[in-house]
Amino acid sequence: MARSPEEEHPQKAFGWAARDNSGTLSPFNFSRRDNGEDDVTIKILYCGVCHSDLHSAKNDWGFTSYPVVPGHEIVGAVTAVGNNVNKFKVDDKVGVGVLVDSCKKCDCCHQGLENYCPQMIFTYNSFSSDGMKTYGGYSDIIVVDQNYVLRIPDNMPLDAGAPLLCAGITVYSPMVYYGMNQPGKHLGVAGLGGLGHVAVKIGKAFGLKVTVISTSPKKESEAIDRLGADSFLVSTDPAKFKAAIGTMDYIIDTIAAVHALAPLLSLLNINGKLVTVGLPEKPLELPIFPLVIGRRLIGGSNVGGIKETQEMLDFCSKHNITADIELIRIDELNEAMERLAKSDVRYRFVIDVGNSLSK
Amino acid sequence: MARSPEEEHPQKAFGWAARDNSGTLSPFNFSRRDNGEDDVTIKILYCGVCHSDLHSAKNDWGFTSYPVVPGHEIVGAVTAVGNNVNKFKVDDKVGVGVLVDSCKKCDCCHQGLENYCPQMIFTYNSFSSDGMKTYGGYSDIIVVDQNYVLRIPDNMPLDAGAPLLCAGITVYSPMVYYGMNQPGKHLGVAGLGGLGHVAVKIGKAFGLKVTVISTSPKKESEAIDRLGADSFLVSTDPAKFKAAIGTMDYIIDTIAAVHALAPLLSLLNINGKLVTVGLPEKPLELPIFPLVIGRRLIGGSNVGGIKETQEMLDFCSKHNITADIELIRIDELNEAMERLAKSDVRYRFVIDVGNSLSK
Repeated sequence: MARSPEEEHPQKAFGWAARDNSGTLSPFNFSRRDNGEDDVTIKILYCGVCHSDLHSAKNDWGFTSYPVVPGHEIVGAVTAVGNNVNKFKVDDKVGVGVLVDSCKKCDCCHQGLENYCPQMIFTYNSFSSDGMKTYGGYSDIIVVDQNYVLRIPDNMPLDAGAPLLCAGITVYSPMVYYGMNQPGKHLGVAGLGGLGHVAVKIGKAFGLKVTVISTSPKKESEAIDRLGADSFLVSTDPAKFKAAIGTMDYIIDTIAAVHALAPLLSLLNINGKLVTVGLPEKPLELPIFPLVIGRRLIGGSNVGGIKETQEMLDFCSKHNITADIELIRIDELNEAMERLAKSDVRYRFVIDVGNSLSK
Repeated sequence: MARSPEEEHPQKAFGWAARDNSGTLSPFNFSRRDNGEDDVTIKILYCGVCHSDLHSAKNDWGFTSYPVVPGHEIVGAVTAVGNNVNKFKVDDKVGVGVLVDSCKKCDCCHQGLENYCPQMIFTYNSFSSDGMKTYGGYSDIIVVDQNYVLRIPDNMPLDAGAPLLCAGITVYSPMVYYGMNQPGKHLGVAGLGGLGHVAVKIGKAFGLKVTVISTSPKKESEAIDRLGADSFLVSTDPAKFKAAIGTMDYIIDTIAAVHALAPLLSLLNINGKLVTVGLPEKPLELPIFPLVIGRRLIGGSNVGGIKETQEMLDFCSKHNITADIELIRIDELNEAMERLAKSDVRYRFVIDVGNSLSK
């Protein structure tokens, strides 16, 4: 007979889990593996609330295995290290992002692209190589192979730094890979949510001119005054939109819902690049003429590898970039999820796990 | 009153034109400008029949200005040069491709990307800076600014070399721009027509493993035995198709009709690149997951600049690459167009203009 989540492993653990597709989260007793020779055990202090957490809690993508403990923007302090651990010591401030393991043998792993390893293990709602389910950061502790743990730079606030582990790397990685980081070029950021607001900051740090493209005119002053964008384009204003046609070199498209690509493509100059990091559940309409006539490309990207995630954290540290967050107690999580579903958050909820999680 | 095509310019010219959207071609008297100081006049010897010629003759794209003399895969001999011409002399064997002029001032022109200049002048069905209509290569002579004329390498057959001026550069340019030319990598060529068969040869010359992807099982032996492809994938064979999933690094998609991108994307490995050079008249369905999960991209490309077209010709000369052609007399043109509409050609019709065009 299968053992209960509480009995699977030797270390007791406690968190909040969703039990069914209502997505409602509630207290949950489970367990973590013993700290192995390559492992670090982390006392979780903060965990960001990613839109993927909401999708997983509600089984929107159809592959949730309940109970699910979401959370993959984890920051905490090391409490134990295995004999082989040379990268971290007790009390180090560390982070865990979207993945906690991979095959370590394939081309992707050898190139530091663990995030594209076919056997990558997600931080939650996945199964480890030992067949055990993974549980995420809405919980008190986590045990992770040191090779999948990030160092949080000294000057980075632990709460506002947490969202960088998913939102930050998700926008940073494609900007580097697709060469969308040449100073002086013009970046459009489509969608101003958790990903978009970090893309604005990283774009500015790369020396780009940044324009936020949004359907909400009311976001204009925030985009410019608070986040540092150079300009704001309301996608529903035909005159303004027409004037912006062909003016952008890059667009990072963070819109997760089904949307039209043609207007965004029309904003791109010759050789323009549009990178999509949202995951609309249905195919989008792709007009071919704008790609061919202007040698434009549409690319995708999915978070980043461990080495690059560390580079991103160090880059953000150097440029004083963190997420803009609303810090919540864990018992405010269900309310926060409701607000997140309505995009009513500026710009990321972060759970104060260390100070609010108790049985 | 507007002057007739025959009276517009001083030099008499003769060709075959379509007069309406029946697309039927027939003899046509018109005229060419005097040979200017920067111009060369070319006696046309051969002209390839591109699928665009058919679209233009029938006004499929809606912007044909009749009468239209198609033809932009032109090879001929120089008969006159202007005072400023230093690149060519009388009797030189030269080529003219898709464009005959551009603004010479914009960023694109400065970068040798005249093919993306917003004021590029097409070889036919376009209007020169003097407001005069351009007429293509289904004709006896053409007058072109030396900066838009290509040198045909000495060892290249003039007839089979002609299609390289459009079909060749259309597939060569994106393979270079998108980095789809790393020896040992695996290229899929979707569609085996005028463009596809040249892509197979250029792919092999780059040192790639080349697989032709086609709906026609009967093309297998030709693809492998005649064109030199390494393998052949019938897209309608589910077992073979499944075995090929995730095996390709690049795909060049030459399919001009509306088609499904999802199966092609599934053939790509991580970081895979699909470049589309066909121009389907309606948007295609673009599934976003394969792009994001595998960091894949879809790019477009439209012929190439003059410098790169010369590089392509020299590359093809070095590797003994030409098109496989069916040489026709100009009075066989309407029949050839009918066969082209049914993709019944191996693999490009070329008109023997020099020996068959007479009043």
